[in-house]
Amino acid sequence: MKTDWSPVEVLRYARHDWLNKIQLIKGNLSLNKIDRANEIIDEIVSDAREEANLTNLILPRFATLLLTYNWNNQRFQVDYEVLDVLKCEYIDDEGLAQWTDDFFACLNASIKPYYENHLTVTIDPQLTGTRFFFDFRGIITDIGQIEEFLSRDGFLAVVNQEISDYELSLEVFFSSK
Amino acid sequence: MKTDWSPVEVLRYARHDWLNKIQLIKGNLSLNKIDRANEIIDEIVSDAREEANLTNLILPRFATLLLTYNWNNQRFQVDYEVLDVLKCEYIDDEGLAQWTDDFFACLNASIKPYYENHLTVTIDPQLTGTRFFFDFRGIITDIGQIEEFLSRDGFLAVVNQEISDYELSLEVFFSSK
Repeated sequence: MKTDWSPVEVLRYARHDWLNKIQLIKGNLSLNKIDRANEIIDEIVSDAREEANLTNLILPRFATLLLTYNWNNQRFQVDYEVLDVLKCEYIDDEGLAQWTDDFFACLNASIKPYYENHLTVTIDPQLTGTRFFFDFRGIITDIGQIEEFLSRDGFLAVVNQEISDYELSLEVFFSSK
Repeated sequence: MKTDWSPVEVLRYARHDWLNKIQLIKGNLSLNKIDRANEIIDEIVSDAREEANLTNLILPRFATLLLTYNWNNQRFQVDYEVLDVLKCEYIDDEGLAQWTDDFFACLNASIKPYYENHLTVTIDPQLTGTRFFFDFRGIITDIGQIEEFLSRDGFLAVVNQEISDYELSLEVFFSSK
């Protein structure tokens, strides 16, 4: 996991991401699709709110991993959803980020390259604890390797897991007690 | 000078800046001012190119200072223009960033607060050396303090300087030889 992002690097990648969005607006305006341009703007604002929500969980290392992962040209793209905004400071951020990074590395090595692989991370913070859902869609080429990774005594409890050739669903839970 | 920006912090400020631009587009679209929205998009793309040019000078500390300065709520706003893109690696980036930061601190302490104070930094890299122009418009309340700062034996040569109550122009030069 790259942790030493310089401000200039972060700004370069962020600029690239934002410019792609701006180009989408521009493209639709040039086709006179004003309604579609407005929809895209609403999506952008909503994505930015989601990014702010992720940051407000106060899991900076974990957030950095999710926010920067797609800049590394991996075999799958990550997006995320935060269902509620409660501070998750009782979670070991460093440990969670490290586990997630290891899991991402294992997943990356177990799927078909140059294919539309996609992972959605859903974070559901509640008063009693926080649930993380990892939902993958794509082509898994080495289920055994993922199962082996998940069966290791790890730092976090996998509550639920389902793996097939095309899907993986994982649920992990951190109690706040 | 704050140098330990975390990726999450940089992204938060960048997000805020970009969302302001998106809101400008959205506002004009809602007024059906499509031409104005397109102009704003062109300005955004042009600003992003300028930001990339600044980064490509390979003066990362100096670039970081300019790119993050407005996030600190100072008495003046900074913008910048890069007239040509040549690598300026012969310049001591650390020294330039430190001098500029000291100069900004002196300027900040010598001007009227809560006023539209504005500083434009123009960077003109040529084969023989690089010129930096600092052009301030606003209200200067302590010319003497700025003159004292500039008269100190500093790390860089001030080629030209003009100061009045409302303006300051400064030209500094680094030879590439």
